[in-house]
Amino acid sequence: MSVEQHIIISGVEPVIDCGRYPVKRIAGESCTIRACVFRDGPDVIRTAVHWRAPGAKPPAEIPMRAENPGLDLWLAEVQTAENGRYRFSIAAWTDAYATWADELRRKVGGERTDLASEYAEGAALVETALRRAEGNEKALLAKVLAGLRGGAPVPEAALALAGGGEVCGLMARLQERGDLVVSDEYEIVADRPRARTGAWYEMFVRSQGTKPGSSGTFRDAEARLADIRDMGFDVVYLAPIHPIGRTGRKGRNNTLNPQPGDPGSPWAIGSEHGGHDAVEPALGTVADFERFVAAARKLGLEVALDFAVQCSPDHPWVRAHPEWFYRRPDGTLKYAENPPKKYEDIHPLNFDCEARWELWQEIRRVLEVWIRRGVTIFRVDNPHTKPVRFWRWLIEEVQAQHPGVLFLAEAFTRPPMMKELGKAGFTQSYTYFTWRNAKAEIIEYLTELTQSGMEEYFRPNFFVNTPDILHEYLQHGGRPAFKIRLCLAATLSPSYGIYSGFELCENVPLKPGSEEYLDSEKYEIKVRDWDAPGNIKDYVRRINAIRRENPSLAEFTNLRFLPSDSDQILSYAKLSADCSNVILVVLNLDPHGAHECTVRVPPEVLGLQSGARFEVHDLVTGARYDWGERNYVRLDPAVEPAHILRVETQR
Amino acid sequence: MSVEQHIIISGVEPVIDCGRYPVKRIAGESCTIRACVFRDGPDVIRTAVHWRAPGAKPPAEIPMRAENPGLDLWLAEVQTAENGRYRFSIAAWTDAYATWADELRRKVGGERTDLASEYAEGAALVETALRRAEGNEKALLAKVLAGLRGGAPVPEAALALAGGGEVCGLMARLQERGDLVVSDEYEIVADRPRARTGAWYEMFVRSQGTKPGSSGTFRDAEARLADIRDMGFDVVYLAPIHPIGRTGRKGRNNTLNPQPGDPGSPWAIGSEHGGHDAVEPALGTVADFERFVAAARKLGLEVALDFAVQCSPDHPWVRAHPEWFYRRPDGTLKYAENPPKKYEDIHPLNFDCEARWELWQEIRRVLEVWIRRGVTIFRVDNPHTKPVRFWRWLIEEVQAQHPGVLFLAEAFTRPPMMKELGKAGFTQSYTYFTWRNAKAEIIEYLTELTQSGMEEYFRPNFFVNTPDILHEYLQHGGRPAFKIRLCLAATLSPSYGIYSGFELCENVPLKPGSEEYLDSEKYEIKVRDWDAPGNIKDYVRRINAIRRENPSLAEFTNLRFLPSDSDQILSYAKLSADCSNVILVVLNLDPHGAHECTVRVPPEVLGLQSGARFEVHDLVTGARYDWGERNYVRLDPAVEPAHILRVETQR
Repeated sequence: MSVEQHIIISGVEPVIDCGRYPVKRIAGESCTIRACVFRDGPDVIRTAVHWRAPGAKPPAEIPMRAENPGLDLWLAEVQTAENGRYRFSIAAWTDAYATWADELRRKVGGERTDLASEYAEGAALVETALRRAEGNEKALLAKVLAGLRGGAPVPEAALALAGGGEVCGLMARLQERGDLVVSDEYEIVADRPRARTGAWYEMFVRSQGTKPGSSGTFRDAEARLADIRDMGFDVVYLAPIHPIGRTGRKGRNNTLNPQPGDPGSPWAIGSEHGGHDAVEPALGTVADFERFVAAARKLGLEVALDFAVQCSPDHPWVRAHPEWFYRRPDGTLKYAENPPKKYEDIHPLNFDCEARWELWQEIRRVLEVWIRRGVTIFRVDNPHTKPVRFWRWLIEEVQAQHPGVLFLAEAFTRPPMMKELGKAGFTQSYTYFTWRNAKAEIIEYLTELTQSGMEEYFRPNFFVNTPDILHEYLQHGGRPAFKIRLCLAATLSPSYGIYSGFELCENVPLKPGSEEYLDSEKYEIKVRDWDAPGNIKDYVRRINAIRRENPSLAEFTNLRFLPSDSDQILSYAKLSADCSNVILVVLNLDPHGAHECTVRVPPEVLGLQSGARFEVHDLVTGARYDWGERNYVRLDPAVEPAHILRVETQR
Repeated sequence: MSVEQHIIISGVEPVIDCGRYPVKRIAGESCTIRACVFRDGPDVIRTAVHWRAPGAKPPAEIPMRAENPGLDLWLAEVQTAENGRYRFSIAAWTDAYATWADELRRKVGGERTDLASEYAEGAALVETALRRAEGNEKALLAKVLAGLRGGAPVPEAALALAGGGEVCGLMARLQERGDLVVSDEYEIVADRPRARTGAWYEMFVRSQGTKPGSSGTFRDAEARLADIRDMGFDVVYLAPIHPIGRTGRKGRNNTLNPQPGDPGSPWAIGSEHGGHDAVEPALGTVADFERFVAAARKLGLEVALDFAVQCSPDHPWVRAHPEWFYRRPDGTLKYAENPPKKYEDIHPLNFDCEARWELWQEIRRVLEVWIRRGVTIFRVDNPHTKPVRFWRWLIEEVQAQHPGVLFLAEAFTRPPMMKELGKAGFTQSYTYFTWRNAKAEIIEYLTELTQSGMEEYFRPNFFVNTPDILHEYLQHGGRPAFKIRLCLAATLSPSYGIYSGFELCENVPLKPGSEEYLDSEKYEIKVRDWDAPGNIKDYVRRINAIRRENPSLAEFTNLRFLPSDSDQILSYAKLSADCSNVILVVLNLDPHGAHECTVRVPPEVLGLQSGARFEVHDLVTGARYDWGERNYVRLDPAVEPAHILRVETQR
């Protein structure tokens, strides 16, 4: 005969989409599991988290404690120590003995002193548990039993004997969980710290050489690593390194008539030299690539590869697997287009084809090849044009073997798809950051990213520019604009990046109103003087050092905007959990002129009393200031557009 | 070979708890179904609601429209015309022809004018659909097919032929839904209007007589109905009318030594005269009760019965079904207690007993008996001490046969359980209203009730007092306090009630600090002069008339608090959807003294331009005032504690 179900488990956190997708956490940090658990009547319940670590380990049971009894809220801290996927559910059951002891406790001092019936009830519970006890536990329970059944103790004595913490704890462990309820199981992905925090540097290998017109190689790229590390970056992200097709190749500035020597777009993947598992011969060999990766690792740099699931007309798959592509009625394969735009150098893959399972497997195999060659991160091109379900499968498959491999989604599309890709498994995502330049829109967007619930599954990577995006703000703002955007990205988000050339303040668009670069590196080899005058490398170096030295900048949701009475000056605080590391950023968003204002730091933000003063140390200039609740600030972008202030002493 | 799943359906509304429970709506009103639906790539999708009305009717398909394409939000209005339970799911599929037509549209005017391949693709889709077309439809598609395959039309002509609304609509209907996705199914309970709106009057039948010490009868209660209707009430709620037990009977003021003639508590249900399906002989017969119900119905009043699932020691079930009760180890049955309180006149039922299915069935049978006798509403006593699952079953069972029977939960307990009972099926619920007397706490509580999401499943009934609750505010506030609380309850909530005696301003507690009434009607018969001096019956009458004449007061979530610069004066607006009926309430919460302030009515609340003036008509006094954005108000509680102003003309 089954037992009546009394207990309700609701409001389990952290859960997204009713548990359809996992939430994200960082391995090595603790995680708080919460639930609202209650039942009818006054009976006492117990709750616990059933916690399953990655692998086949048996689940652990972690008792929850009452966080807010008035709202039936329970909580437990769990450790996501390993990089992998955890599963948890909430278990709850009625503790009959604790219920009995609680009623006894409340009857002590009451009108009735003959509680023989109550004692008999408690004795019955103890007797049942006694059968499962051993050793000292058995002795203790026997004593309780004897006391309750024997000498009719006064209520206070009975309570002392049978209602103490040790006996109740023992009974909690031994008694049956007659009405045990277990919730659905939910998943948490615990990623390694790089999933949240890192400074990224994007470059084209072919442009790392020193001879104009000649392709740079992996060796040239290797020679740049020391400088990239010196600037303080953690990840080197390479535009595609695969063989580039000839058919339909684009010329400089995306023209349709390539000249001999035009290298084409690296995203037109595949030639007679191979496809997604091969390297463009002009860059070197696979061994050269592996050497490059090893050199990077030695410097503490990770290598991220661009991963674009598409093919040039010359890709080996076109001949070997025509069934993987879209076919026109005349039998020819379709190139990519987004009318009126046409991309004759690219064939999209048909994820509706009958042979799609083989396609999925091949893509999986390609990733495995690169992982074996030392790649730890994939930046995925346009995932929003392939089924979400495919990405979920691919990422889960890869991470089951390699939990430390990260995936960055480059999906500039509508918000629901961007969010779904994050939920489905992408470790990080590009965002609308480049188009958020004014104060109000920055505040609105960062508030959404840090507080709307997105923070459970969506990790932004604030690239300040990309080969496709040179925002107007940078085109017209001069060198100060580059410092402003770098400071914003690097202090608002633990993961941010620059596309090489940004440090040189490259800012010439294809034409007015365009976000494309003139003479874009997508269509030609660019040889740069990496120390060209006017560069902001010192600033980049300083900002990255500040990030590394201040742990509050390695988190994301610890952001709080501070009021300032100028719409050109943005101010915010980044606070570590115990306030041991507090960074205040005050930033002039206008690259053209100085502005001044009063920045208000409400005392409670720093846990201070009203009227308290504190010293701030400008980590960019070294200056120190005495601050309080209201502070005058003037920032000239031609000098320094931003204060990055560490709160150092409180007076 | 199965088809690839591209479409994501998320954010379906209205849904609570992942669909575990239904949401509530009112029959006769429309309901908006929303969902966020999207897929990878640029393909065009269609979405629809699959809508199932109560009963075995086949589902209807209601197309959704794009409410906000930039956020992939779709919407459809559905009608919950019937009182009953509706089910819905979201269906979505790719419209291949619309996708094709959209691409064609974007290629018109482009570089290529030879679109033979595109025409061929469209023709293939049309040809497949043609096989399923009939009559005129067939002719139209044949014409399109011929045009696309025949004369190589210029793009504009092809678009006009094949991309127009009629053709696209026809193709949308005829083509296969290859990748159809259907969401989970969700439920909506459409209750009749009384579920949301009504004024309730609670009384004890035995106190409706005219001879002190003698029990009133159903005839006496019948004689009161005209006056209750005249005051403007819609529901008469009776304290339990069942036989009252003798064993353990409580005396006056809840003492343990009843005197002969003390009638006991009506909640100590059951005697030799019967149990939950019987009537206390002192009140009359079942036929008398049915006559009472008929008389009420003739006056437009509904009868609500108190339903308390508990028994006196003399209840027939004790002898017939001892297995339904808790048994002490000595074999005797346990009475109710909440230590240190004891309720020796009541035995709780044991919902864990092995025979609980029979218990459930008997409770169901009892309700059916009363429904047949004309009862349409049950006010359930302390549902939070019985399993939630039981109530869900009971309410669903009853409403499957009698969808118009309503259930009010009297669960003064912690919020999660109160909410769960609402979700599980209770039509309405008592709330913390009696303990929300100051301005800030009223605003906070009403904001939670109207905006936190609770409004989807939790309908408050704002009783101003109950036989158990005489709040201190009423004890010390005099006659004005009664008017204030009545006005608050009746204008803030479409469902509210008074416990008889409130209109006579009965306000003497058992002792200082207690919320119990002195000489509580729970333990004795009270014969009242229903027109005693100092009563507020005229005010009750006026307030109920204002409610009936102003439809904005029949809704709940259409509430907006207005700023006023006094913490004693509360002001709010109730606005019908099209602003055709707008009521502004300005209320002095201090029963002891006059207060004045400025009440601000932001123009946008009324849809007005800044600076606009409007006339307001005080529906209590008849006075008219010229109002604008800022308005001086002075309220003397000894005169009228509240303005209830209808916005009548806008200048």
